[in-house]
Amino acid sequence: MIIVMKPQAAEQSIRAVTQYIEENGLQVHLSKGEEVTIIGLVGDKSKLSTETLSIFKDVERIVPITESYKLANRKFHSQPTTVQVGNTSIGPGNLTIMAGPCAVETKEQLLSIAHAVKDAGATILRGGAYKPRTSPYSFQGLAEEGLRYMQEAKAETGLSTICEVVSLDAIEAAVKYVDMIQIGARNMQNFILLKEAGQSGLPVLLKRGLCATIDEWLNAAEYIIAEGNPNVVLCERGIRTFETATRNTLDLSAVPVLRQKTHLPIIVDPSHSTGSYKYVAPMAKAAVACDADGLMIEVHNDPAHALSDGPQSLTFEKFAALTDALAPFCTLVGRDFKA
Amino acid sequence: MIIVMKPQAAEQSIRAVTQYIEENGLQVHLSKGEEVTIIGLVGDKSKLSTETLSIFKDVERIVPITESYKLANRKFHSQPTTVQVGNTSIGPGNLTIMAGPCAVETKEQLLSIAHAVKDAGATILRGGAYKPRTSPYSFQGLAEEGLRYMQEAKAETGLSTICEVVSLDAIEAAVKYVDMIQIGARNMQNFILLKEAGQSGLPVLLKRGLCATIDEWLNAAEYIIAEGNPNVVLCERGIRTFETATRNTLDLSAVPVLRQKTHLPIIVDPSHSTGSYKYVAPMAKAAVACDADGLMIEVHNDPAHALSDGPQSLTFEKFAALTDALAPFCTLVGRDFKA
Amino acid sequence: MIIVMKPQAAEQSIRAVTQYIEENGLQVHLSKGEEVTIIGLVGDKSKLSTETLSIFKDVERIVPITESYKLANRKFHSQPTTVQVGNTSIGPGNLTIMAGPCAVETKEQLLSIAHAVKDAGATILRGGAYKPRTSPYSFQGLAEEGLRYMQEAKAETGLSTICEVVSLDAIEAAVKYVDMIQIGARNMQNFILLKEAGQSGLPVLLKRGLCATIDEWLNAAEYIIAEGNPNVVLCERGIRTFETATRNTLDLSAVPVLRQKTHLPIIVDPSHSTGSYKYVAPMAKAAVACDADGLMIEVHNDPAHALSDGPQSLTFEKFAALTDALAPFCTLVGRDFKA
Amino acid sequence: MIIVMKPQAAEQSIRAVTQYIEENGLQVHLSKGEEVTIIGLVGDKSKLSTETLSIFKDVERIVPITESYKLANRKFHSQPTTVQVGNTSIGPGNLTIMAGPCAVETKEQLLSIAHAVKDAGATILRGGAYKPRTSPYSFQGLAEEGLRYMQEAKAETGLSTICEVVSLDAIEAAVKYVDMIQIGARNMQNFILLKEAGQSGLPVLLKRGLCATIDEWLNAAEYIIAEGNPNVVLCERGIRTFETATRNTLDLSAVPVLRQKTHLPIIVDPSHSTGSYKYVAPMAKAAVACDADGLMIEVHNDPAHALSDGPQSLTFEKFAALTDALAPFCTLVGRDFKA
Repeated sequence: MIIVMKPQAAEQSIRAVTQYIEENGLQVHLSKGEEVTIIGLVGDKSKLSTETLSIFKDVERIVPITESYKLANRKFHSQPTTVQVGNTSIGPGNLTIMAGPCAVETKEQLLSIAHAVKDAGATILRGGAYKPRTSPYSFQGLAEEGLRYMQEAKAETGLSTICEVVSLDAIEAAVKYVDMIQIGARNMQNFILLKEAGQSGLPVLLKRGLCATIDEWLNAAEYIIAEGNPNVVLCERGIRTFETATRNTLDLSAVPVLRQKTHLPIIVDPSHSTGSYKYVAPMAKAAVACDADGLMIEVHNDPAHALSDGPQSLTFEKFAALTDALAPFCTLVGRDFKA
Repeated sequence: MIIVMKPQAAEQSIRAVTQYIEENGLQVHLSKGEEVTIIGLVGDKSKLSTETLSIFKDVERIVPITESYKLANRKFHSQPTTVQVGNTSIGPGNLTIMAGPCAVETKEQLLSIAHAVKDAGATILRGGAYKPRTSPYSFQGLAEEGLRYMQEAKAETGLSTICEVVSLDAIEAAVKYVDMIQIGARNMQNFILLKEAGQSGLPVLLKRGLCATIDEWLNAAEYIIAEGNPNVVLCERGIRTFETATRNTLDLSAVPVLRQKTHLPIIVDPSHSTGSYKYVAPMAKAAVACDADGLMIEVHNDPAHALSDGPQSLTFEKFAALTDALAPFCTLVGRDFKA
Repeated sequence: MIIVMKPQAAEQSIRAVTQYIEENGLQVHLSKGEEVTIIGLVGDKSKLSTETLSIFKDVERIVPITESYKLANRKFHSQPTTVQVGNTSIGPGNLTIMAGPCAVETKEQLLSIAHAVKDAGATILRGGAYKPRTSPYSFQGLAEEGLRYMQEAKAETGLSTICEVVSLDAIEAAVKYVDMIQIGARNMQNFILLKEAGQSGLPVLLKRGLCATIDEWLNAAEYIIAEGNPNVVLCERGIRTFETATRNTLDLSAVPVLRQKTHLPIIVDPSHSTGSYKYVAPMAKAAVACDADGLMIEVHNDPAHALSDGPQSLTFEKFAALTDALAPFCTLVGRDFKA
Repeated sequence: MIIVMKPQAAEQSIRAVTQYIEENGLQVHLSKGEEVTIIGLVGDKSKLSTETLSIFKDVERIVPITESYKLANRKFHSQPTTVQVGNTSIGPGNLTIMAGPCAVETKEQLLSIAHAVKDAGATILRGGAYKPRTSPYSFQGLAEEGLRYMQEAKAETGLSTICEVVSLDAIEAAVKYVDMIQIGARNMQNFILLKEAGQSGLPVLLKRGLCATIDEWLNAAEYIIAEGNPNVVLCERGIRTFETATRNTLDLSAVPVLRQKTHLPIIVDPSHSTGSYKYVAPMAKAAVACDADGLMIEVHNDPAHALSDGPQSLTFEKFAALTDALAPFCTLVGRDFKA
C-alpha cells in the first residue's frame, strides 16, 4: 500500500501517518519528492484498512498495490485449475456445457430435457429447485422434490448435475442429490451462504452479481476457498447497465480479464444475460471464441409454457443446432467437445 | 397486462396467444387497430408470467399495467405508515436520526458514542455486530457480544437500537437484544433472509441494493410484509454508477418517487452513499429538504482508528454541529426534531 | 505521477522506464521497497501520457497525482468565482433561478412566460432556440428567430437571458441577442464547440454530460477557460444509470464534491434530471439545502401543449408556489433570493 | 402509440386525451377494460410527442409501438446493406479490418504502419488527424497535414482510408483526402455534425456513444441517412459501466440486437473498448464469432512511444498473429478474409 500525501503536507501530518502505521506493527518507507511525499508500507497489511488511512490530515490518496484475494489469485497459483464435477471436468482442454430448464417443474419434464441435452452434447444438467424471484408471488421452485428429480435424471442419463442454493437448508439438501451447487447473482455477496458453500464439500459455481466488479467477485470466490474448498468455477451472466435492449449486458471481456487475474475456470451464461433465446447462439459462439471454459444454457421442452424464464430458453431443436455449430469453434480453440 | 402484437401479425398467432391466456383462466379483451392488434387480459394475472408471453410468435411487446407489489403499494394504502421502534417512531411529522458506529468495537466505545449521539438529538443507536465485508480477511464484527453491548447502551441511555442481520442466527440473536433489524444492501434480494425478517416480529430497515431499481426494492419490502410484518422502513444508501468521486451515487430523487409509490417511511444514509465525512452534512440537509423521514449517520469517537468505514464517520463535534444545523430545516419542512 | 512496478520486476524493466522518463526531460525519483519498486516523476509531466507508461514491461500501475485541469482547479484558485450575467450574478451569497420554456415556440408564449417567471423571482430567462433532439423528425427549434424573441423578452422584462448553442453559427447568433450561452449535455465533450464558446466572450453554462465523470466535466470547463473565458458555470442535470423511475439520476452529491475541486459556481437542473414536474419541487429544495448557487427550471404556460419536454415543465402557479417555498431555505443557507 | 389510463380514470380525463389526439389530426381507438382504459392512436404520429401526452390527468403510461427511426430500420428495409469504401466493401460475406494508429504522427510512421497492416490483411487504413481529447493540454492531432499523409499512404499501398472528423472544417478537408469519415463516440449526438456528415457524400462510420442506448444510436444514424446518405456503418466500441477492469465494457450482444433492428453493417472496436492490447485478440475473435462485419484495431510501430492510446495498440507482430488466427474463424462464419 502506498500513501500519497498532499502537496505541501505538513511535517506533522506525515508524522501522524507514519506513527499510526508503526503502531500497527508495520514498517514505513518514506520517499520525499519535490512535489509530493509518498509513504510506502512494508509488512503484513491485512489488518490495516485502506479506508481508515484516508482520514488522516493531508493524505491525498491511498493506492493499494496488492489484491486482497490470495487463494483465487493467479499471481500465487499460476497453473489453471480444473474442477471435477461428478464424472466430468471443467477447465483447460474441454468445453463444458451445462444445460437444462431454469426451474424443475415435473419429473417427466426434467427427464425429457435431460435426454435431449445429453444427446446434443451437454455433460452437466442444470435445473433450479430453489428459485430466487423478484416478487414473492412468483413460482419459487419445488425445493427438495426438485432435487430428487435431478438425482433420477442423473441416474437415467449419466449426466452430472448442478442446482442453485439459496440457504443452508438448500445446501444440506443439495449435498444429498447433486454434484455441484450454484450461488446465484443476487447472493454473490451473501457472505454467510458463501462460507456455508465453502464447507459443503461440493464444487461451487459462483455467478457474478449484477453490479459486482471483477475484484469483488474474486473476493467472493475467496470466501469459499478460504473455507477449504478450492473447487470454484466462475460464471459471467451479465451486468446491469443503462442499456435495456438486452436484459443485462453480457461482459464478455471479463473472460480475458479473469484469465489474467485468476486460475479458476470460467463459464459464460448467454441465456440469463441477454434474456432472449434469439441472442443465445451468437453469444455462445463468442464466448467459446474468447476462450471460456464452458457455457450454461437454458433449454426447455416447451418454452411457451415454462414456469420461469421461458423467453430465453432454447427448444431441443435450437439447442442441438447450436451445439452442432459450436463444435468447429471448439476445435479451433483447442477444446474437446462432442469428441 | 397488455400484449401488443406485431404489425401484420397472423390471425393464427393472435389465436395462439388468446388461447394460452384463456387456458390460464383469464379473459381476453381484443382490440384490432389498423396497424396493430392489442390483447388485454382481464382477471387474476398473478400466475401468468409476463416473460412467457413474450415468446409467442408475432408478439411485439408486453406491457405490465399493475405493479407486482400490493402491500407496499400506495395505491392500496393511501395513508403514510408510521413505524414504532422501541420508544420512538418513524414517519410523518418526525425527523428520526439513527446514529452510531459502523461496527461495534468495545463496550466503552459504544457507550461513549451512545451518549454523544443522544445528546445531539439522535433517537436510535445504530451499531454493526455482523459485518458483511467484501474480503474474508476484514473484521467481521463481534456478533452476539456486540448485541449485548447494544442492549447495555439502550439501558443506559434510553435510545432505541438497530443492528444489521445477515443470517437467521443473527436475527434470532437480534430479537433478544435490539429494537429494529436492518437488511443491508448486499442482502436486499436474499429472499430467504427477507422472509425470516418478516417472521421476526421486529421492525425492519430495508436498505436499497447497490443496483436495485425502486420497483425491485419495493418487491423486496413486499417479501417482508407478506410474512405478516408491516413495519418496514426503506433506506436509500446510494446506487452504483460510473462516477467514482463518491463511493456510490446517492439517489435522492428516489425519495419523492417512493412517496408516490409507497406508504412506507423513507430514511436516507448520507454516510455510506458518499463514503466521505465531508459530504455527509450537505447531503443530510438535502435529504431533509426533499422530505425524508429520517437519516442514518455514522458517528465514531475516533474515526482514524475505526475498524470499519472510518473515513465516512463524523466525530462527536461534527455530528453535534450537523444536528444543530438540521433543526431549522426540520422546522421548515414541518417535522419535530430536538423539540 | 507515480509508477508502481510489479513485484519481482526485472532491473532491466525498471531501467527501461526510468530511461524513457529521462528521455522526455523529466527526473526520476526511485524508491525500492521490499515488495515493490516505485518510480516517481519530477518536472513538467504535461507531455507524458499516463497511458503510454502502462505499456512498459513489469509496470503494475500508474497513479496520477495531480489533476489535468488547472484553471478550473480550486487548488490554484481558492476563492469561489462569481459570474456576471447581464445585470445579475451567479455565485456566493445569491440564489439564481433560471426559468423558462424548454423550447421557444412563439413570441407571445415567451413574453407571457418571461413575465410570470420574473414575478416569481427568476432573474434569468431560459429558452431553447436550437434543440438537440434524439430523432431527426422532432421539433428542432426556431433558431435565430427564437433568439430575437429572447431579446424582446429581455427588453420588456429586464431579465437576463440564456440560450443553448449547438454550433458556431448558433454561437455567432447568440452573441447578438442573449447574455449567456449554454453547452448542453450531449455536447459536453464536443471540444470544438467548447473552444468556440471560450472565444465567444459570453459567460457559459456547461451542463454535465449524461455519462461524464466529474473530472471529465472539469476538463471540459478547462477547454473554455483555456481560451481566455473564465466565466464558466457548471450545471448538474442528472446522469444515466440503470434506474428508470426518473429520466436520469440527479447526482446531488456532485455539488459538495465540486465545491472541493473547483471555484466555479454550480447550478442544479431538477427538471431535465427527473423528467417529471412532480419531482421538481423536492429536488429544488434539496439542491438549495446542499448549497447549489442556483437552479434551472422549466416553466411553460401550457405544459400539455408544449412542443418539447412538457411533462417536466411547471405551470406558472406551481413555479410561483415553488419559489415561495424556496425563499426560507435561501435564508437558512445565507443566500439572497427575492429580497 | 398506446395510452394506458389509470384505474378509475375519470370520463373527463379520457375525453381530454382523446380530444387532444383528435385536435392533432389523429384518430382514436378506445378500448375500455374492467380495470383500465386503453387509448390507441391511428394515423401519422410523427408530430405528437409521447412525453406531452404523459402530462394529462389520469394517464398511467404511454407505450410507443413503433421506433422513431425509419430509414435505418430493418422493418422497412429487410436486406442487409453493403457499404462501398474506396475499393473495398463492408457487409455480408466479408470481414473488413480497419487498422492503423490512433493518431497520425509522422509520414514515415504512417507509411510503415500502412504497409504492415496491409500485409496482414487489413483493407482500410485508420489514422486520427483530429483527436478529441479529454484534456485541452493533450496532443490534438496533425489536422489537414495528417490527412495528406493518409492520402499518400493510400497511393502507396492501395488501402482505403478512414479518418475521424470533429467539425465541418474537418469534414471539408476529409472529403479531399480520405474514403470514409468517422463520427466518434463523444460526438454521436452532435446532431449538427451528423447532418454535415450526411451531406458530405462520404460513407460514415458512426461510433456508439459511451452511454448511448441502441435506439439512440440508430436515431443518430437516421440523422445521417435522412440527409440523403445511406452509407452508414455502425461501430460498437464499449459503453460506460461501473466496471473499471477494462476501460469500457464492450457490449458484444449489441451485434445480434442490431442485426434484428437494422440493415446497416456492424463493426466492433476491441481496442478502445478494452483499453488494453492484451484483450484485443480474444475480443476480436468473439466479435467475428457473433457475426460482426468487421473490426477496427489499433496498430502502432512503437506503442511505447505512441502519442495517443499506446497501451491498447498492437505491434506489427501481434497484429499479424491476430489476423492469422482470425482467418479460420472467418471461414467458419462464411466471410471472406485474406482470400
